Amino acid sequence: MVVKVYGPTYASPKRVLVCLIEKEIEFETVDVDLFKGEHKEPEFLKLQPFGSVPVIQDGDYTLYESRAIIRYFAEKYKEQGTELLGKTIEEKGLVEQWLEVEAHNFHPPLYNLVINILFAPLKGVPSDQKVIEESDKKLEKVLDVYEERLSNSKYLAGDFFSLADLSHLPFGHYLVNQTGRGNLVRERKHVNAWWDDISNRPSWKKVLQQYKYPV
Amino acid sequence: MVVKVYGPTYASPKRVLVCLIEKEIEFETVDVDLFKGEHKEPEFLKLQPFGSVPVIQDGDYTLYESRAIIRYFAEKYKEQGTELLGKTIEEKGLVEQWLEVEAHNFHPPLYNLVINILFAPLKGVPSDQKVIEESDKKLEKVLDVYEERLSNSKYLAGDFFSLADLSHLPFGHYLVNQTGRGNLVRERKHVNAWWDDISNRPSWKKVLQQYKYPV
Repeated sequence: MVVKVYGPTYASPKRVLVCLIEKEIEFETVDVDLFKGEHKEPEFLKLQPFGSVPVIQDGDYTLYESRAIIRYFAEKYKEQGTELLGKTIEEKGLVEQWLEVEAHNFHPPLYNLVINILFAPLKGVPSDQKVIEESDKKLEKVLDVYEERLSNSKYLAGDFFSLADLSHLPFGHYLVNQTGRGNLVRERKHVNAWWDDISNRPSWKKVLQQYKYPV
Repeated sequence: MVVKVYGPTYASPKRVLVCLIEKEIEFETVDVDLFKGEHKEPEFLKLQPFGSVPVIQDGDYTLYESRAIIRYFAEKYKEQGTELLGKTIEEKGLVEQWLEVEAHNFHPPLYNLVINILFAPLKGVPSDQKVIEESDKKLEKVLDVYEERLSNSKYLAGDFFSLADLSHLPFGHYLVNQTGRGNLVRERKHVNAWWDDISNRPSWKKVLQQYKYPV
């Protein structure tokens, strides 16, 4: 039975899709329209009680939270497709560290930018300029740390592409292409080279082609 | 060589300490005083470029981000002390899912309460009542989902204590004992039983005795 992925067009589900393609796992997608509130309907809440996408079904096994899902598939299919976890426990520790940095340092200010720059106008609510300014500052500091790290290793966890890099793709795409902030990446030599490398992977290009962002 | 843990008295480092005790790993601690700004000094930033605690050193291996560290030790010492990851890939997937729920659903509103109720007065800045009200509401909804989950399984990931439960201890302690919000736990039958169970583990009692919270 092929894997089912709910909510494919949004950013977090794309984290799962690119992982499935890297791991050469067959999947089908189920549309969930957040703008119509389909994620708050009782049927969906039975799958994901917090009302978020993505959710996956792998046979009769259901799992949610995109970063938990990518860890699950990377481990279940360790010997298939791209190795995304590192070869040793120490390498894996660094993959986990940078996955956490993505979740707790990179993502929050960028999410605030996406909400205020892309989504607020769509919903007809005012953008919060103070939040935008603070988020820009935070993100610059975070990317300064990335620049230093990527001057010492090709990818975040070491000299191998991993879940930690992959996890940056969906919101990194918003940052570079849709919020008018490509300069934050472009003006940092090593971050720029890293972004060009990971965003040009065939897996990510396929995700972008097949699952258009709703914004 | 014993493991070194930087910043033991704060909440996130306690996530690491309780894990090390459960896994029967010897460690020593290195004080980092956030109130004096020691986490922003150049020597510390070499270890942790974002200026946060905890950081661990395991021989010449350095790792930061508390949830990455606990995964690393749970895996490195899989056969020693309490098994914290689950026995199968499916169980481990659920441990990861609930670790992510802790990080993204439980932690953020609770962190906002801790900052505004406990830390703001200490720093002489005003508490944000709107943030407090919104955080209370969010946390109640999250705990309603926990109540439902814990009516079906003894612990979050299944019928075994895991990293997912353990990860709730440090900020759960703030919630129940120091923010005047013990009722949010006490009035939910299954959440209450779960909290009594996990917070009475000898490992956690030892952490509380030996590493006093600064607030």
